[in-house]
Amino acid sequence: MRAVVYQGPRDIRVMDMPDPKIEHPTDVLVRITTTNICGSDLHMYEGRTDMETGRILGHENLGTVIEAGNAVMSIKVGDRVCLPFNVACGFCKNCERGLTGFCLTANPGAAGAAYGFAGMGPYSGGQAEYLRVPYADFNCLKLPEDVEEKENDYVMLADIFPTGYHATELAQVRPGLSVVIYGAGPVGLMAAHSAAIKGAGKIMVVDTHQDRLALAEQAGAIAIDDSNGDCVEQILELTKGEGADCGCECVGYQCCDHHGHEVPNLTMNNLVKSVRATGSLGVIGVFLAEDPGAHDKLAKKGELAFDFGRFWMKGQRMATGQANVKAYNRQLRDLIEADKANPSFIISHELSLEQAPEGYKNFDERNDGWTKVVMKPGKR
Amino acid sequence: MRAVVYQGPRDIRVMDMPDPKIEHPTDVLVRITTTNICGSDLHMYEGRTDMETGRILGHENLGTVIEAGNAVMSIKVGDRVCLPFNVACGFCKNCERGLTGFCLTANPGAAGAAYGFAGMGPYSGGQAEYLRVPYADFNCLKLPEDVEEKENDYVMLADIFPTGYHATELAQVRPGLSVVIYGAGPVGLMAAHSAAIKGAGKIMVVDTHQDRLALAEQAGAIAIDDSNGDCVEQILELTKGEGADCGCECVGYQCCDHHGHEVPNLTMNNLVKSVRATGSLGVIGVFLAEDPGAHDKLAKKGELAFDFGRFWMKGQRMATGQANVKAYNRQLRDLIEADKANPSFIISHELSLEQAPEGYKNFDERNDGWTKVVMKPGKR
Amino acid sequence: MRAVVYQGPRDIRVMDMPDPKIEHPTDVLVRITTTNICGSDLHMYEGRTDMETGRILGHENLGTVIEAGNAVMSIKVGDRVCLPFNVACGFCKNCERGLTGFCLTANPGAAGAAYGFAGMGPYSGGQAEYLRVPYADFNCLKLPEDVEEKENDYVMLADIFPTGYHATELAQVRPGLSVVIYGAGPVGLMAAHSAAIKGAGKIMVVDTHQDRLALAEQAGAIAIDDSNGDCVEQILELTKGEGADCGCECVGYQCCDHHGHEVPNLTMNNLVKSVRATGSLGVIGVFLAEDPGAHDKLAKKGELAFDFGRFWMKGQRMATGQANVKAYNRQLRDLIEADKANPSFIISHELSLEQAPEGYKNFDERNDGWTKVVMKPGKR
Amino acid sequence: MRAVVYQGPRDIRVMDMPDPKIEHPTDVLVRITTTNICGSDLHMYEGRTDMETGRILGHENLGTVIEAGNAVMSIKVGDRVCLPFNVACGFCKNCERGLTGFCLTANPGAAGAAYGFAGMGPYSGGQAEYLRVPYADFNCLKLPEDVEEKENDYVMLADIFPTGYHATELAQVRPGLSVVIYGAGPVGLMAAHSAAIKGAGKIMVVDTHQDRLALAEQAGAIAIDDSNGDCVEQILELTKGEGADCGCECVGYQCCDHHGHEVPNLTMNNLVKSVRATGSLGVIGVFLAEDPGAHDKLAKKGELAFDFGRFWMKGQRMATGQANVKAYNRQLRDLIEADKANPSFIISHELSLEQAPEGYKNFDERNDGWTKVVMKPGKR
Repeated sequence: MRAVVYQGPRDIRVMDMPDPKIEHPTDVLVRITTTNICGSDLHMYEGRTDMETGRILGHENLGTVIEAGNAVMSIKVGDRVCLPFNVACGFCKNCERGLTGFCLTANPGAAGAAYGFAGMGPYSGGQAEYLRVPYADFNCLKLPEDVEEKENDYVMLADIFPTGYHATELAQVRPGLSVVIYGAGPVGLMAAHSAAIKGAGKIMVVDTHQDRLALAEQAGAIAIDDSNGDCVEQILELTKGEGADCGCECVGYQCCDHHGHEVPNLTMNNLVKSVRATGSLGVIGVFLAEDPGAHDKLAKKGELAFDFGRFWMKGQRMATGQANVKAYNRQLRDLIEADKANPSFIISHELSLEQAPEGYKNFDERNDGWTKVVMKPGKR
Repeated sequence: MRAVVYQGPRDIRVMDMPDPKIEHPTDVLVRITTTNICGSDLHMYEGRTDMETGRILGHENLGTVIEAGNAVMSIKVGDRVCLPFNVACGFCKNCERGLTGFCLTANPGAAGAAYGFAGMGPYSGGQAEYLRVPYADFNCLKLPEDVEEKENDYVMLADIFPTGYHATELAQVRPGLSVVIYGAGPVGLMAAHSAAIKGAGKIMVVDTHQDRLALAEQAGAIAIDDSNGDCVEQILELTKGEGADCGCECVGYQCCDHHGHEVPNLTMNNLVKSVRATGSLGVIGVFLAEDPGAHDKLAKKGELAFDFGRFWMKGQRMATGQANVKAYNRQLRDLIEADKANPSFIISHELSLEQAPEGYKNFDERNDGWTKVVMKPGKR
Repeated sequence: MRAVVYQGPRDIRVMDMPDPKIEHPTDVLVRITTTNICGSDLHMYEGRTDMETGRILGHENLGTVIEAGNAVMSIKVGDRVCLPFNVACGFCKNCERGLTGFCLTANPGAAGAAYGFAGMGPYSGGQAEYLRVPYADFNCLKLPEDVEEKENDYVMLADIFPTGYHATELAQVRPGLSVVIYGAGPVGLMAAHSAAIKGAGKIMVVDTHQDRLALAEQAGAIAIDDSNGDCVEQILELTKGEGADCGCECVGYQCCDHHGHEVPNLTMNNLVKSVRATGSLGVIGVFLAEDPGAHDKLAKKGELAFDFGRFWMKGQRMATGQANVKAYNRQLRDLIEADKANPSFIISHELSLEQAPEGYKNFDERNDGWTKVVMKPGKR
Repeated sequence: MRAVVYQGPRDIRVMDMPDPKIEHPTDVLVRITTTNICGSDLHMYEGRTDMETGRILGHENLGTVIEAGNAVMSIKVGDRVCLPFNVACGFCKNCERGLTGFCLTANPGAAGAAYGFAGMGPYSGGQAEYLRVPYADFNCLKLPEDVEEKENDYVMLADIFPTGYHATELAQVRPGLSVVIYGAGPVGLMAAHSAAIKGAGKIMVVDTHQDRLALAEQAGAIAIDDSNGDCVEQILELTKGEGADCGCECVGYQCCDHHGHEVPNLTMNNLVKSVRATGSLGVIGVFLAEDPGAHDKLAKKGELAFDFGRFWMKGQRMATGQANVKAYNRQLRDLIEADKANPSFIISHELSLEQAPEGYKNFDERNDGWTKVVMKPGKR
């Protein structure tokens, strides 16, 4: 089969790779019909992780089941399914509590596994024609009939829609509350979309890219252009000096100042300042336990000069980590089916699998208008 | 009246001060019968805050109502009451949600007020013969008849028992879960007592003082002596390598290494390491938005070199801030009345008010055996 | 002043009554500018309660503060305020936990007080020119400047908007879940509006009145006309045989079959059948501890032949009771201000106070098009 | 193998039955070493269900894995395991949210399955030498090494300890709150044990059997002997007239008055009366959707003359249904291991499997001293 393979920093290639096979009776094989490039793929693409060369990338996957292991019960050949990016067993201490992003079985010795991801287990990615899905009864989300027309919406259920939603859950967004979201990348936009669905009062999205801020407004948010003056002051002004009730961090460890220089603590410390006392912060941008490639001395060992005193004095709360996709994907699927959610609004480019290198390059450079890339392995 | 007055770093004196008066129709006056020295009084005592000289200290107060303003409805002269250290109005946006530690009325321009405390409003402390209590209907907790024999238990309801309990709430301690508590000072011991009341499975308390670790064991905890080797490794060993389910920080910004040197990020980073992925951290040790007296460069501006990457990778949560005493004091009072809680077990010294300087000095020096000091203004 | 006075079954009159006065230092007086007739006023109007003759009705009130007691701190003359129908002290065991609908102070010997309501304390109603508001700091919700144009929206904050919202909270409505609402009266419509704000998936409203079902559709719901065939079957069909995730009861003890005969257990038993196993029911229609005027033998003593076995087998949950208005009115106010809620869409008639008898009569008879009546005491 | 087989009302026999086999790759076979008689077995024993004759009873099972299907991953031959009475798939909509008592897969067309239970799917019971366990990775709880000495404690994890705990969760028992528990049978006693573990303030248990009330006191509860006068009044007296904060129903549809006559609504209506306004009720006694064998006309169709008016006026909540054992069994296991729970204190008789008829008869007749029977199939 054809697949997108990591070859080294900023070097991915579309190559022939062996077809996957059923390896365990609870596996299924899926023919991928849509697979996305995610912002976290760029961490690997840029060589800022310990990703092994030769591995297939891609953890935002949707397709059709073509074969099922003999222990699989609820999933059948022909089913149209979307796969959570987390590979999860369904029966460990974490999975049974719904913490599928921290499965203790799928990636022994660590908590959490994913397809085609550095440090997240041996699973191949889905930027390919076929994908092996373990623990299939637990990991496959069946899609309704309108998948044929809404496939670009449903594929967002694999990662960024639940991840953006997770940010709003961690931040305790509820009807009528105000929320500030740092980052108008795909996940930040999904957080804005989620906040709007939840009936948040005032939704404020901070970024500097005009194309992304325009999408934030399309999602019902107020665009805060950080290059137009201190974003914290803009937010305080919009909230009568109080700060937002809730805050979402959707940027991660590579956040930058206006000049494009990485300033690792910038977003987090601004977030603390722009959220009111007793407010909650949801942090879903990726942070690493160590980042040898960083310039910042603290960042190399994964530390952040965090404004802890202010955070504590304000009695704020913070929740973090990768989304437990299965905690949300059913309900979000139902909202798409009911035409009450349409996460595909962020898609800027629909490519073939062969165009993956072009997609990665442009998305990585944040070139204007490249907000989200979906690829269609079936179409050449 | 006689009162304990702050005169400057490490200089407190018992002096004659004017009696307090009813200033607003919702005030009451209380004759103090027990008042404690709190670990946070030491921050002021040591001159590490902007406390004004000439102010009366003391925020852990219990006494008898001797006069009530004409708008007071539920509190009567003669009532025995314990006063939450937070002064709270009862009707602002935060108070009405139970966040009485962050009252927006009592200390205008800030969130949260307290008796005799730096930066927490103009309220005099209760290390004195009399105390003015504002918003009396909201702030007075009535005590049952057995107060005469259990006064030293009930006085702990003013601060450290609810504060220790708050730590366990923020850390989401529930029956059967394991919890690690950093710090066996009065608040850490109250957290251990609270965790035991809640039915926690394994309770581990980290400290280096033998007298305090002995009290932790008395509270049903496993003592972890940090001077006997890396506490993180001890905890991992006790939890099959997994880490504790929950973690409580009961130390604050002045945490020290084995040699007694302040290492501001030591406790927090150890906490992250010793709690399992997806675990929750409750941080009730005090951290300051700025600490000009610190040696550490980051600490001066309130920042901490926090192990954010590891925290995020583990998907942990953290909740912080001063306890909302009223959220817990009724139920904890009922547990004392039912003989199911006895927080007075930590008291080491019962002094007269005149002995306050001796009490402060010894407690501040962590002299052996000085775990908790209560004072009896009525008795000379 | 002029006021709407209860004189006996189906006999209310607009009469001259003495002006209210400040009775306690925490009171304010409010000049009423909008006051509504509520469905629960009809229980009294019909003589199905023990309402005393000579009392002023009206618990959905909005107006301008004209005088404040000397202990009032946060409310000033000239403030535009909406008053929760519950009178609550703010400091009892229930109020401090946010359960203001069950205040233990305001109506001694019972839990919960209200303006102009049978069995809910001595407070006069606000269908009048002036109203005394006790515990004013706690009970007044300040309104923003756009109250002049949105007064008919903001007045819904006194009762039915928070009450409808409460139904959805009790029923645990969350984004993407389906919900069935029994009753398209004002409260049922507010529940539908609330469910839509919260991002519910499928919202189904059951009633037989065409005008009300049309408003339900306007609120984004699917209208289930119970006269078109068994409503339970219609709901099961819309939910793939499973039943709705959540259910709201917005009818109360006087529910009727298709022929208009009261069948007290009809709604509740249908609700159990039309909600899925493990689903939650929110019951905010009024039920009485005794109803001597009922035909049904069980109903006379407040009992219902409830389908308990099925309820239990399905592992459902049920939460009940009057709304704690203050738990929601701030956020709902903010949604109105942000143009994300517009509860006034249900208003069918805007009358003067003198027209109250006409309003009561038509609303009580459920005459076509009489969905909600607001009255303007200021305008003659 | 030998097994306890249902032959008709009050007729169970120990017979030779075929050994179970692996039927699906995710099954394991377990050699049963301890299996209990449950109160709900008596519903079948008495012929008050539609249990088929010829089926093996027993849903409280503990044993040793002797064979594992080829898809089983985490469970190995030799593992000592306790089996939740609910058979659950782990991947349906309910299981993935932790609602394993309402699995949609294991008993198609219904919600919830169990071993050896009427209407709960085709699964054989474990009152036998061997048991087939489906979905073994999900359903087996591994036991620690001290199982050899604490087997009688750990076997309670199959049902009644989690079920009693569930009652306290549904009733929202928290530290310092008071709770009334109706029924001092095994589940009621486990609820009392759970409430004590959770730090409840006052625990009151209502029953008329002296032997069971004595065990309640042993669990730290106050015994309320209903034959000594109205239990509701006794409870009100113990709670200053207010009623308990929380209430647990641990009796079910066969509750009786003092004279031993079934009065189906007696417990529930007393519960409503003896719990305070805004309190929560947890109902885990079994109620049936229909009970043709009942004398009461309403009971035949599963209805109860429930005091709905009072329930609603008090704003109470009620949650019901079979326990989701897996929601609690890990933590409760850890409490047993830590010597902080010892549910075996209720065991009155330890029998061989061959003595099952004697055990059923005495337990069914509530003969004095027969509180809980465990059987040891391995020992003859």
